[in-house]
Amino acid sequence: MKLSSKMDRCRLSPMRKFNPYADAAKARGIKIYHLNIGQPDVATPKAYYEALANYADPVLSYAPSSGINEYVDSVRRYFKRIGVELERSEVLPTMGGSEALQMTIATLLDDGDEIVIPEPFYPNYHTSITLAGATIRPIPTYVEEGYFYADKARVEACINENTRAILMTSPGNPTGNVLSREELQLMLSIAKEHNLFIICDEVYREFVYDSDDLVSALQYEEYKDNVIVIDSVSKRFSACGARVGVVISKNKEFMSQVMKWAQCRLATPSVDQLASAALYDLDPSYFDEVKKEYCLRRDTCIAGLQAIPGVKCRTPRGAFYVMAALPVEDADDFQMWLLNEFDDNGETILFACGEPFYGTPGRGKNEIRIAYTINAPDIKRAMEILKIALEKYNNR
Amino acid sequence: MKLSSKMDRCRLSPMRKFNPYADAAKARGIKIYHLNIGQPDVATPKAYYEALANYADPVLSYAPSSGINEYVDSVRRYFKRIGVELERSEVLPTMGGSEALQMTIATLLDDGDEIVIPEPFYPNYHTSITLAGATIRPIPTYVEEGYFYADKARVEACINENTRAILMTSPGNPTGNVLSREELQLMLSIAKEHNLFIICDEVYREFVYDSDDLVSALQYEEYKDNVIVIDSVSKRFSACGARVGVVISKNKEFMSQVMKWAQCRLATPSVDQLASAALYDLDPSYFDEVKKEYCLRRDTCIAGLQAIPGVKCRTPRGAFYVMAALPVEDADDFQMWLLNEFDDNGETILFACGEPFYGTPGRGKNEIRIAYTINAPDIKRAMEILKIALEKYNNR
Repeated sequence: MKLSSKMDRCRLSPMRKFNPYADAAKARGIKIYHLNIGQPDVATPKAYYEALANYADPVLSYAPSSGINEYVDSVRRYFKRIGVELERSEVLPTMGGSEALQMTIATLLDDGDEIVIPEPFYPNYHTSITLAGATIRPIPTYVEEGYFYADKARVEACINENTRAILMTSPGNPTGNVLSREELQLMLSIAKEHNLFIICDEVYREFVYDSDDLVSALQYEEYKDNVIVIDSVSKRFSACGARVGVVISKNKEFMSQVMKWAQCRLATPSVDQLASAALYDLDPSYFDEVKKEYCLRRDTCIAGLQAIPGVKCRTPRGAFYVMAALPVEDADDFQMWLLNEFDDNGETILFACGEPFYGTPGRGKNEIRIAYTINAPDIKRAMEILKIALEKYNNR
Repeated sequence: MKLSSKMDRCRLSPMRKFNPYADAAKARGIKIYHLNIGQPDVATPKAYYEALANYADPVLSYAPSSGINEYVDSVRRYFKRIGVELERSEVLPTMGGSEALQMTIATLLDDGDEIVIPEPFYPNYHTSITLAGATIRPIPTYVEEGYFYADKARVEACINENTRAILMTSPGNPTGNVLSREELQLMLSIAKEHNLFIICDEVYREFVYDSDDLVSALQYEEYKDNVIVIDSVSKRFSACGARVGVVISKNKEFMSQVMKWAQCRLATPSVDQLASAALYDLDPSYFDEVKKEYCLRRDTCIAGLQAIPGVKCRTPRGAFYVMAALPVEDADDFQMWLLNEFDDNGETILFACGEPFYGTPGRGKNEIRIAYTINAPDIKRAMEILKIALEKYNNR
């Protein structure tokens, strides 16, 4: 029986690909430092659990397709604090940032369309875009340039008559790149000039380590018809398991079309939306401790990487990832060796291999993404293991 | 800016279309009997809320893309009770039956493909199928024949070289039709003979009023490579707001392809999955009271409808819907009149209009779907209002 050729062209998650080998290593008694998944270890605020325990409606009924008012209003209050006024109809609750992306892409892209994305990019973008029948036109970036892409000529070289949208993540996954306000404005102006939507994945907005300036593309009124913002409670409040996000746009046609997807899946979970409202209403000082901790982890990770001969990386300004080029030909092969043949005092490491983060065939083969979502002493030890392993691997 | 032409061909939900007019009527002080949405008023079992309150993990982390074992195992135990042995890998938790359908359709259908569905059918099927680039080939059924479709010649007349799958809902929404075991086997055998997948939407499995026989297409081992079952806690346990469902298949290729969607959206909510496990483990006697109540409502609704001259309907065997043909030309116009111009002692009714449940243009215009999810005295009164309204409407 024939299945969808579009689904066939999609890929399984590169972050989860090595799990069976990791499980086998664990079964042999090996301890693994997990640097492969952006799952924060920070405690979820108690307000979330209190909201769960206090849910009192005897019938757990459908939320409206357009979301629960308490949650939508908490999102609106949050944006008001950074100078953005949102109407009720401009905020659509979703099943995490993931569904916000799925529905946005399904609403914008047709067969044969192209979407411009700086590479390396979050690999899950590929699935939604392929299912829409569209393709990614990557803007190449390079570790040596700190994964820089906000340059008019460089972006415009990727725009053609099939281009419908630009998608960018700032702070970035996997690079940790953060656009300056000038760079963000440049990207928005390119979108406007070429009559394109610009999807701004801002789920890491609070995780910028050299600034307290909360930046959103929604703050630029001039580009409001072009901007679609993806947001989520997952990383921000260490509530990945809630699956609560939001898609925001002031473009009325987009919001009316995306509602068709929202109605097709009826609603997002009622209790999780209410509990997420409690998160958005936390005092912003909540982030101070969290940011301090991630900053320490980042610095520990970068110090460890810089002590390894042949490793290339730049200090990321935000999010909780580092992209690094290793002195190996094939990071996939190195990872397999780390799990199947190597250990240092019974310990090894698991990262995400770089290739699936690229759209250009062949790129990223020697790169890896490290998620610094484990504590600083563990990161320090993991970087020591990486150093020892690279020496051994390259002297086999 | 151009948006997706596929999304443009999708429709907004017919069940929610009249909400603004209903809100306006309410604002004028009119009481509305809501017969338009399948939202049960039955209390959600306490086990669900206890599980919410007892969630103890300090970090609300991602569930695996393949779901939480406690929930998957509760589903497996449930099916074991009706004679179906399921492997862990054959059960994939989803965001309600809705996402199970979205991902199944995206996994099976390509541009130009066709899927055979008896009409009238649940309108949300249309959105997922259109987004996949495929079209619905409806099997026509008629109220006079009790919406019967399980006939070899009738089904095969709809199968051609573009057909990839059959989709059926039993017990049915909107008809309340229930396939007999012979009819189910016939449908499965047609799928097998023509090398088609058969998607069996079984979310109303427990709601059959003249039998305690729990039927699932998974019980027919011979057709296991063809069968995909959609299931959900929403209706079964009156837990629509949980958004927890499941897609089940013994076809390994399908399960491996559908996993790409599962990984793309990362996970379904952790707490809701755990709480749903508690629901599946309820004693089956839980359904006795619930079924008795729905049976009373069905009988009340049918008695009311049969007392109205010119109304055609059949007593449905299952689910909680009745499809009825009214002595009007255009149910849409009648509904608008009911909300804008009519009341009986300050009361009126809201149903779902029939046309969007059909794939054949022009069909269903004089039909309506009634959801008997409100209590029996209210249903009795609603049917009285319908009778009075039809008289007035037809003698304007």
